[in-house]
Amino acid sequence: MTDRAFNFNAGPGTLPVPALQQAARDILDYQGLGLGIMEMSHRSKEFMAIAEQTESLFRELLGIPNNYRILFLQGGASSQFFMVPMNLLAPGTTACYLNTGTWSAKAIKEARRFGTVDVPFSGEADNFRRLPEPTDYTVAHGCQYLYLVSNNTIFGTQFSSFPETDVMLVADMSSDILSRRIPVERFGLIFAGAQKNLGPAGVTIVIVRDDLLDRVADSVPTMLRYKTHADKQSMYNTPPCFAVYLVGEVLKWVKAQGGVEAIEQRNEEKARLIYEMIDSGDYYRGHAEPSSRSRMNVAFNLPTAELEAKFVAAAAKQKMIGLKGHRSVGGCRASIYNAFPVEGVRHLVAFMQRFERENPA
Amino acid sequence: MTDRAFNFNAGPGTLPVPALQQAARDILDYQGLGLGIMEMSHRSKEFMAIAEQTESLFRELLGIPNNYRILFLQGGASSQFFMVPMNLLAPGTTACYLNTGTWSAKAIKEARRFGTVDVPFSGEADNFRRLPEPTDYTVAHGCQYLYLVSNNTIFGTQFSSFPETDVMLVADMSSDILSRRIPVERFGLIFAGAQKNLGPAGVTIVIVRDDLLDRVADSVPTMLRYKTHADKQSMYNTPPCFAVYLVGEVLKWVKAQGGVEAIEQRNEEKARLIYEMIDSGDYYRGHAEPSSRSRMNVAFNLPTAELEAKFVAAAAKQKMIGLKGHRSVGGCRASIYNAFPVEGVRHLVAFMQRFERENPA
Repeated sequence: MTDRAFNFNAGPGTLPVPALQQAARDILDYQGLGLGIMEMSHRSKEFMAIAEQTESLFRELLGIPNNYRILFLQGGASSQFFMVPMNLLAPGTTACYLNTGTWSAKAIKEARRFGTVDVPFSGEADNFRRLPEPTDYTVAHGCQYLYLVSNNTIFGTQFSSFPETDVMLVADMSSDILSRRIPVERFGLIFAGAQKNLGPAGVTIVIVRDDLLDRVADSVPTMLRYKTHADKQSMYNTPPCFAVYLVGEVLKWVKAQGGVEAIEQRNEEKARLIYEMIDSGDYYRGHAEPSSRSRMNVAFNLPTAELEAKFVAAAAKQKMIGLKGHRSVGGCRASIYNAFPVEGVRHLVAFMQRFERENPA
Repeated sequence: MTDRAFNFNAGPGTLPVPALQQAARDILDYQGLGLGIMEMSHRSKEFMAIAEQTESLFRELLGIPNNYRILFLQGGASSQFFMVPMNLLAPGTTACYLNTGTWSAKAIKEARRFGTVDVPFSGEADNFRRLPEPTDYTVAHGCQYLYLVSNNTIFGTQFSSFPETDVMLVADMSSDILSRRIPVERFGLIFAGAQKNLGPAGVTIVIVRDDLLDRVADSVPTMLRYKTHADKQSMYNTPPCFAVYLVGEVLKWVKAQGGVEAIEQRNEEKARLIYEMIDSGDYYRGHAEPSSRSRMNVAFNLPTAELEAKFVAAAAKQKMIGLKGHRSVGGCRASIYNAFPVEGVRHLVAFMQRFERENPA
């Protein structure tokens, strides 16, 4: 593993090496059974134990109260864009959505198929560089839920705290789940695709308050009801076994790092190092307003598009890959998820300093 | 890999060793990039090449005509139970379903949410031991499609040929895809969860005729339309990258074995060996009627439930695992998917002979 690159990919992204090493062994033979982790029945006692351990470790690490169910689903966060309103937004009722970027816009579009969607804040005119302050919007009385995307990968913004409101929150935490402590009890539902902080693409974790499971209409297909999966411990049908297993290995690594609090401190440190570099002069400019900055995805620009292209290419030659920004923002983006090492951030900061010196604007 | 068990699991089941060995390497570092197969962007040129190669190899191996699209979806075959009628069965129209077991019954239940479902044949009274002959049923005029499950894992039955009808066929081939040649052009849509013959649980392949993509109503959520995924080469959202990659490795193995025709011959040979043993006396009794027998799942009984339990336990001690039958049939079941070796079948047959001698009824 000595030739490992510093992987700044926005997702799927870098994963903890110990989890990968364990998987490489378990793929060929799991615990001396004579078959690999992908070759066993999901109803075998060995896999059931893996699934239960993964769920309980996730509950422990995030401090999830007992009145919440943890589901391992398929279809990506994109499937939650419609499953949330399909299960929680009855026809004729209203939900509130904060539009803070591409992923919230997609969620709004799908929710409008099911009920009324109120959008009291949109950052669109500002190219989503700023998240709303509590005084920027009002949550309409009678809203079923207030929907937000806790971290916006493309624009590099992140809610540093969550709205204080009587309405329950629903959040897409795909890109910052497990990166910091969260007040789960203020949420009705939280979902996250795994491929940033949790594991490989192919499994989506849903945390849902158990009293919400019965809201769904009878007409909804069996597989699209949260209740179906909650009633069967996510084993109504064959789960994405390997992805669930690997999430479990990643969670063990998080615990070994000291848990979410320790991870959160490390993430703050990593982000601080890059933002300090950006703020130290005029050469690099962060896309997000300082109060809205993400600790997961640092989106920034250089003086010209030519310099940005040169920067990305030169970094790749030094084994720092995935620094190209998303096409809707341009420029550069450093994604520094949980498994991204502090060492890699120091490497990037030193490279940024050198590049600026050698390539004046 | 010398301690490898003979894995008769019904699914997830045994996978080809060369595919697993390659995966164990690629998880840590893919082609010297400094990152593993699960850690790269699905939009990277490396992963795009994997996805394209997997699709084209699948097309080549099954002889899929160019007017069919191949989709890599999530949610398991169980999600296709509702996606098929959601996309193909307009309100007020009728589809025909052959009820040949648990999986068709579930599909029928979901289809009834969308349109009229006609069930001209049901094997239920007979505990699904027999599949219909063409003369057993009539396909109602005007049916949108005739739905069937090509192989029934639980009851060990399999269509040896497909119904000759003017109505297009739709088939759940989860448990026998790629095990034999199929006349794709007679089908409107074929789907298969990967975890028997294709790869790990977590990806479902859909083969759909391209003229059917536009049938879907505007009200259907974006992620639930086949067209969404067809238009974006299954990259509308992040695909289950590792599962797609591993399917590709399994396909390379199939090709190296001589392709589907060679695999089909080997599967016939494997099934023949076990059924000949069963038919050689009265000790073992096959669940399925001979004309309906599956080449993938051999369900059989011993003289008593006690002997069956003893049989399963004794086999497990000799590294033949997963032989317990499904709870709805009882008895024993040997699943002998593509990657299950002929050697393992010979091992089982010898064990069956010995067990019968040592444990008279």
